[in-house]
Amino acid sequence: MNKHVPQSEFKTPEVTTGSLPSSRKVYVAGDQYPDLKVPVREIDLHPSAGEPAVPVYDTSGPYTDPNVNINVEKGLARTRTAWIKERGNVEEYDGREVKPEDNGGVTGKHLAREFPIRNRPLRGTGTGPVTQYEFAKAGVITREMEFVAIRENLGRKKMLEGAEARVEQGESFGADIPPFITPEFVRDEIARGRAIIPSNINHPEIEPQIIGRNFLVKINANIGNSAVASSVEEEVDKMVWATRWGADNVMDLSTGRNIHNTREWIIRNSPVPIGTVPIYQALEKVNGVAEDLTWEVYRDTLIEQAEQGVDYFTIHAGVRLPYIHLTADRVTGIVSRGGSIMAKWCLAHHRESFLYTNFEEICDIMRTYDVSFSLGDGLRPGSIADANDRAQFAELETLGELTQIAWRKGCQVMIEGPGHVPMHKIKVNMDKQLKECGEAPFYTLGPLTTDIAPGYDHITSGIGAAMIGWFGTAMLCYVTPKEHLGLPDRDDVKVGVITYKLAAHAADLAKGHPAAQLRDDALSRARFEFRWEDQFNLSLDPATARDFHDQTLPKEAHKVAHFCSMCGPKFCSMKITAEVRDYAAGMSDNEKKALEDMTEEERRKGMEKMSAKYEEMGKELYLEEDAVKKANEGL
Amino acid sequence: MNKHVPQSEFKTPEVTTGSLPSSRKVYVAGDQYPDLKVPVREIDLHPSAGEPAVPVYDTSGPYTDPNVNINVEKGLARTRTAWIKERGNVEEYDGREVKPEDNGGVTGKHLAREFPIRNRPLRGTGTGPVTQYEFAKAGVITREMEFVAIRENLGRKKMLEGAEARVEQGESFGADIPPFITPEFVRDEIARGRAIIPSNINHPEIEPQIIGRNFLVKINANIGNSAVASSVEEEVDKMVWATRWGADNVMDLSTGRNIHNTREWIIRNSPVPIGTVPIYQALEKVNGVAEDLTWEVYRDTLIEQAEQGVDYFTIHAGVRLPYIHLTADRVTGIVSRGGSIMAKWCLAHHRESFLYTNFEEICDIMRTYDVSFSLGDGLRPGSIADANDRAQFAELETLGELTQIAWRKGCQVMIEGPGHVPMHKIKVNMDKQLKECGEAPFYTLGPLTTDIAPGYDHITSGIGAAMIGWFGTAMLCYVTPKEHLGLPDRDDVKVGVITYKLAAHAADLAKGHPAAQLRDDALSRARFEFRWEDQFNLSLDPATARDFHDQTLPKEAHKVAHFCSMCGPKFCSMKITAEVRDYAAGMSDNEKKALEDMTEEERRKGMEKMSAKYEEMGKELYLEEDAVKKANEGL
Repeated sequence: MNKHVPQSEFKTPEVTTGSLPSSRKVYVAGDQYPDLKVPVREIDLHPSAGEPAVPVYDTSGPYTDPNVNINVEKGLARTRTAWIKERGNVEEYDGREVKPEDNGGVTGKHLAREFPIRNRPLRGTGTGPVTQYEFAKAGVITREMEFVAIRENLGRKKMLEGAEARVEQGESFGADIPPFITPEFVRDEIARGRAIIPSNINHPEIEPQIIGRNFLVKINANIGNSAVASSVEEEVDKMVWATRWGADNVMDLSTGRNIHNTREWIIRNSPVPIGTVPIYQALEKVNGVAEDLTWEVYRDTLIEQAEQGVDYFTIHAGVRLPYIHLTADRVTGIVSRGGSIMAKWCLAHHRESFLYTNFEEICDIMRTYDVSFSLGDGLRPGSIADANDRAQFAELETLGELTQIAWRKGCQVMIEGPGHVPMHKIKVNMDKQLKECGEAPFYTLGPLTTDIAPGYDHITSGIGAAMIGWFGTAMLCYVTPKEHLGLPDRDDVKVGVITYKLAAHAADLAKGHPAAQLRDDALSRARFEFRWEDQFNLSLDPATARDFHDQTLPKEAHKVAHFCSMCGPKFCSMKITAEVRDYAAGMSDNEKKALEDMTEEERRKGMEKMSAKYEEMGKELYLEEDAVKKANEGL
Repeated sequence: MNKHVPQSEFKTPEVTTGSLPSSRKVYVAGDQYPDLKVPVREIDLHPSAGEPAVPVYDTSGPYTDPNVNINVEKGLARTRTAWIKERGNVEEYDGREVKPEDNGGVTGKHLAREFPIRNRPLRGTGTGPVTQYEFAKAGVITREMEFVAIRENLGRKKMLEGAEARVEQGESFGADIPPFITPEFVRDEIARGRAIIPSNINHPEIEPQIIGRNFLVKINANIGNSAVASSVEEEVDKMVWATRWGADNVMDLSTGRNIHNTREWIIRNSPVPIGTVPIYQALEKVNGVAEDLTWEVYRDTLIEQAEQGVDYFTIHAGVRLPYIHLTADRVTGIVSRGGSIMAKWCLAHHRESFLYTNFEEICDIMRTYDVSFSLGDGLRPGSIADANDRAQFAELETLGELTQIAWRKGCQVMIEGPGHVPMHKIKVNMDKQLKECGEAPFYTLGPLTTDIAPGYDHITSGIGAAMIGWFGTAMLCYVTPKEHLGLPDRDDVKVGVITYKLAAHAADLAKGHPAAQLRDDALSRARFEFRWEDQFNLSLDPATARDFHDQTLPKEAHKVAHFCSMCGPKFCSMKITAEVRDYAAGMSDNEKKALEDMTEEERRKGMEKMSAKYEEMGKELYLEEDAVKKANEGL
C-alpha cells in the first residue's frame, strides 16, 4: 500500500496558507536584540466590544503572514544562521553523503524527489559553547532566549495588571512562575536544566520556543509515513496544518521508505522544532531486523539526522538489559516501539543496550549540533493495569542518571513520560520525575486515563494531559482519535492538536499563568454580549464553532441576534441578566450588606433547626422490626 | 422554524433497536425478590482469548433485547406498577385534565398527536411511606433497592477476587465504597440521604438505578425541542439513542410548543429516569413573560408533570432575592435559564422567590409521587472568571438548608453544580457541597475547564467532569460539541454520551471501584493479543473503533493480523514483547534479584558522582563577567 512517488509525478506539496479569521500577524522586536521579529497573532474584535485586539500565541510561522511569499520548493527563510555564526564556535563542512539506505534502499521511480536545495551543514568546533545550555551556563543570553521570553509574555506587559495576583491565585505545585518572563529568567532556567529551547544549528528556519515547567505548557504533534500509508506531500501538509492549529513542536515518526527525503522537505519548511526517533530509521537500514542493529549504524543515523537539522532525538537509553524481565508479567508488555526494538536487541545479544554503553559519545554528537535529548520512556505502561510499575520507574531512575551525564556534556535534556495512567496515579509520575531527573522538563504522552474508549483516546488522554500539565509537565504529546487503530489523517491531526491546545490551556489557567485567562475572559464577554463573530474568532477552531452555530441558526442575521441558539428569541438567560445589572446599580452598599446579613442569620437558624430534626430522625435509622407497620403509622 | 406536526402527518417515532456487537442481554434475579430481572450486557470474546464473557453495565433497556417486541405506540412494559401497589399507600385517580396551555396553546394540525394510551396516575395517600427515602428510613428494602444493588455489582461477585484490595488502591477522598454492594447498604445510603433512586411512581417503565457518591458515577443526557428546532420523533429517537450508548438518565429540556405531548411519548418509552425543569413549561404557559409567572401556574405544572411520571425536577429555589445583586459584576452574569427566569421574577416584583417561600408545599407534591429533587444551581458560573464566587456559594448554602427541609418531608434530593471552573478550583466545589448539603448526591454540568474552545466543550468539560467525578460527584450532566453554539443532533448526543461515559469510568477507576478495571484489562489484553474484533466489541463505541481501523487497514484479513496498523508488518512492539516473556520465563529468581541489585548499586554510584559534578557546575551559574571568553576556553 506504500505510495511510490516517481520523480516525474512528484508534486510540490500543497500547504494551507492565509490568516485566521479577523487575525493580524504582528511582530515584536527585542530590547537586547532589536532585530528579533517575535510573532504574535492579534484577533480584532467587533467595534461594539470597545476592546483592544486580543494577542494569542502563534505557532503557525510565515504561512499565516499574507506578506510572506511561501515557496515550499525553497523552504523557509534561514533567519537563525546569522545568529549562530555570529556566536561562533561553529564551522560549515561538506557533511555526510546521502546513502541509498537513508531512503530505505529505494531507487529510480520509487525514490521520492530530493529537496531542491542542499545546504552545507554546520557543526560545533569544540572551541566554545554551541548549545543553548552551554551559553546559559556561561551567562550568555542568546537571541533565542530573548525571542522566547517575548513570546511567552505575548508582548502584553501593559495588559497584565495584577499579574502577581493571578500567579498567586493559581496552584502550581511548587513551580516558580514569574509574573513576567525576562531573558535573564529564561537563561537561568536553561542553565538549571529546567527548560530547553530545541534548536539544532542546522534548523535555522524555526521560530524558537521554550519548553519548561515555568513556561506555558507546549504540545507536540506526531506525523510520519509508514510502510502501510502516506506520502511526502501528505506529511509536509500535515506539518504545516498542525502548526496552523497550534502545534509547538512536531515529531516525524516515519518508519517506511523515503525517510531521509521526506524529512528534508519537512524540516526545510517547518517553523517549529522537529523531533525524531532515530532508532526507527536505523532499523530500516538493517531491514527491520532488530538484532542486526549496531552502534555504528545508529551513530551514522544520528549524524545524518543532526546534519539535516532535527531539533530533538528520542533516545531510549533507559531500556536496560536488567529491566527487561520486569515487563514480563505486564498486561501489555513493552508498547513503545523504540523500547521494544532495544529490548529485542538486548535479548538477542544478551548484552547491555548500546545506547546506554555509548551514551557519552551520543552526548558528544548531540552537543555538536545542539540537538536536544528527549530521553525516551521505552518501558512506559501501555495499559491502566501496568501503570507505575517497577519496570516504568526503574527506567525513570536511569533517565535521571543519564540526564546528569547529558548536562555535564553540555546538552539540553527533556524526559518522556507515559502513557496509560489512571487519574489517581498521575501525580506520582510528575513528582517522581521531578525528583529523579533534577527538574528537567517532562514530556508526556497523554496519559490516557482509561483503556475502554478506542476512537476517543484524544479525550481519554486529554483528561490526563490537562492534569499532568497542571502538575508540572512542560510539553504534552498529542493523541489523535486514531490512536491504537490507525494512522491519523489531516482531520485527526487537527482534532488532536485542538484537544491538546485546550488541555494545555486548562493547565496554564490552573497553574496561574498571568496572561492565560485573558483569552477566556474576552471570549466569555463576547458570548455574553452576543458578539457571535467575536466568539468564533477567539476560539481555538473558528471554522468549527461557526459551522456548529449555523447548523441551528443559519441566517446571517442571527450572528448579531440577541439570543442564544439554544433558547430561542423570547427565552434567554443572558438577556435577562442585563436587567439584574440595572437593578444592582440602583442599590446602595448598605442595602447590599443588609441583605447578606439577613440571609446569613436565616441560614444559621435554619440549619440549627434542621440538624436538630435530622438527629431525631437519625434515631429511627436502624429500627428494622415492624418497620412497615411503624412506617404505616406515618413518619 | 418550529416544525408543526399535523395529526395526519405525525409519524410513529423510529428508534434504534438490536443488540450491540457480540453482546448478549442477560438478566439477573434477586435473592430477596426473585422476580427481579436486572439487565446486564455480556460481551463475548473470541475463542482464542480463553476468557469468559465481559459483563458491562447496561442502560439501553429492552431496545437491545432481541426477545422483546418494541412498539413505541404502546410504550414499555409497566413492570414497577405491581411493586408500587404491593407496597401500598398509593391510590389511582383520574388526574388532572390536559389543558391547551400544556402544549403551548397550539391546536388543530399544529398540535402533536397525543400518546395513544392514557393511564390513570397514582399518588400517595399520606397513610405511609411512598418515596424510596421514606421506605429506607423505615428500614424497608424495596425491589428498587435490591435491583440497583445487583446492577452495581454487575452480577460478577465471583469475578471480583481481591475486591477489597482494589478499593484500597484507589483514592476516593473519604467516600465509603464497599467491595460489594448489598441491598442493605443501598437502603442505608438512601436513608442517610447520600444516594437516591429517581423513580416516580407514575414512571413504572424504568429499570431503577442509583445515584450516590459510593456507587458507580452516572451520567445524564439532555434532550428537548425548542422554539427554534426539532420535533417529537427526533426527541424520542434521541432518548433511545442516548440510552443505547450509556445515558443513565435523560433530561427533557423542551422549551417550545407541544411540550406536554412530546414528554408523554418520551416517558412512556424511556427505560431510564426522566428529569425536567418545570419552570420552562410554566414560562411557556405565561407566554414567556417571566414576571407573569405565579405560584399557582408553577404548582399546577409540577402536578401535571408528576402525574406524567417525571422522575426528578430541577428546582431553582436557591435563587433568592438577596443573592441576585451578587451577580451584577460577573463577566457572564446568570447563565442558568431557570436561574435567570427566577431572578427576573424576583426583580419585577421585588419579592422573595415563590419557589423558596413555597418550598414546603413543593416538597409535599414531590413526596406524593416520589419525584426526586434536583436542587438547581441557578447562580452557577458561566465562565472561568465567575467560578467559585460569592453568588455561587451563597446559593449552595441555601440549597443545603433546603436539603434538610426536603429530607424532613420525606423526599429524595440531589444538588446541581457548575458549570465553568478552572481545574484548581474544582475540588473546593466538591468539598463545600459535601459540607453544606449533608452529603446529598452532587450532580454537576461538566465543569468546563476553559472557555476558549467552543465546538469542543464536550472535551473542555469532560476533563472537569472526570476530575469532579473522582472527587465525589455522583452524576455528570453531559455537554455536547454544540454547547454554546446550537442544539445537539443525534450525532452530538452520541459523542456527548460516549465522552461522559469515559469520563465517569475514569473516575470509577480512580475511586477504586472494584469491578471497574475488569473492562480495561479485558480490552488491553485483546489489544495486546491483536484480537481486533474483541478490542472493537469491548470499546464504548465499537462502530467508530472499527471504522477508524478500517480507514488504514481495510482488509478483513487485518482483523487478525499480528501487527498494529500504526507500525506495519515487520515492526511491531507487541510482537517483540512476546519474546521478552520467553526470556523472563527462563530466568531464575536469583538471576532477577542479582540484576536489580547490580543496577541499584550502579545508580547510587552514578548519582553521587553526577551530583558532585553538578554542584561544581552550579558554581559557574552566575559568572556573568567575561562569560563568553570563559566559555570559549571550553566548559
